[in-house]
Amino acid sequence: MPPASTRVPQQERSRATQTRLLEATVECLVEHGWAGTTTTVVAARAGVSRGAQLHHYPTKAALVTAAVTHLADRRAGELRAEAEALPAGPQRLDRVIDLLAAAFTGPLFVAALELWVAARTDRELREALVPLEARVGREMHRLTVALLGVDERSPGVREAVQATLDLLRGLGVANLLNDDSSRRTALLNTWKRHLTTQLAP
Amino acid sequence: MPPASTRVPQQERSRATQTRLLEATVECLVEHGWAGTTTTVVAARAGVSRGAQLHHYPTKAALVTAAVTHLADRRAGELRAEAEALPAGPQRLDRVIDLLAAAFTGPLFVAALELWVAARTDRELREALVPLEARVGREMHRLTVALLGVDERSPGVREAVQATLDLLRGLGVANLLNDDSSRRTALLNTWKRHLTTQLAP
Repeated sequence: MPPASTRVPQQERSRATQTRLLEATVECLVEHGWAGTTTTVVAARAGVSRGAQLHHYPTKAALVTAAVTHLADRRAGELRAEAEALPAGPQRLDRVIDLLAAAFTGPLFVAALELWVAARTDRELREALVPLEARVGREMHRLTVALLGVDERSPGVREAVQATLDLLRGLGVANLLNDDSSRRTALLNTWKRHLTTQLAP
Repeated sequence: MPPASTRVPQQERSRATQTRLLEATVECLVEHGWAGTTTTVVAARAGVSRGAQLHHYPTKAALVTAAVTHLADRRAGELRAEAEALPAGPQRLDRVIDLLAAAFTGPLFVAALELWVAARTDRELREALVPLEARVGREMHRLTVALLGVDERSPGVREAVQATLDLLRGLGVANLLNDDSSRRTALLNTWKRHLTTQLAP
């Protein structure tokens, strides 16, 4: 075994290579869609050799699911940090909904939607994605409960959080081809008032 | 000009050919996705010659947008007929939401979603689809108002109808890779009670 001082930089280089590949993958999905995202294009964009790429992610399905997992984890961390910076008080719920709406219209949502739709007709991708979708769904729900600072054991809270996420997913799709932001803002203003009532302790 | 008796059957044959092509297109989109839907595969599936197909729909973008328009119009007609058969009374709203939820998890929704997502990164398709998306969106809204038998001039009605359609779109996406029906049914039961209050005159 090499001494620790050599091993650690190697692991770090390896992690840095992985991160570059995963971020290039999401950028590719956003820019070129599922069909235009090839492992070759991603390796070139990340500045990583084909050999190194295949070593870390042997298939396109492995690469794209790792990419969405990586970005979902990072985005969840960012949302927590942004929500922690929010002031307490009656405006907090509104700002949390704004943060979530931004997430559901951002690059991670677009990349994930490319994968969900492609996975419908691609068995290998579907097998890799179904457990990931379940995990991301559960974590998004848990994160929303935490950001809103609500107690899921109170009646109606779980349903209100679920409906919020389903509504935001629908609004994300409505924003795919057009800037739907003014309609979305008006609709979410109504939704915020509804949620405030639903989530009142 | 040929006599009317010859012209009419020709027009009918032409319409029948178009209908077969459009229905084969939607079936292809559902089965093989956007990338797997080629004009050759569609012509073969419809039992229509390549020449006849190119005569009616010269490009893939023309074919798929005509297919989604055709199916959206047909589905709207079916929804109207199904809704007319519903009994009046307090259960009516619940049944209308059930009809709409079925539409948002059916083949038309899946085919349309394939197109919306592909159009993000395909300029020719996007140019054909953006006006269609706007039209289908407006008609779906108008149809929902009609099926629910509500008056859009009443305060809150327009927003409640919009939120319902955005929520159903989100639920449609959640159903892409998994049968999400039991979660959806529970969520929509809560939503029906909320809507009943929102839409009360």
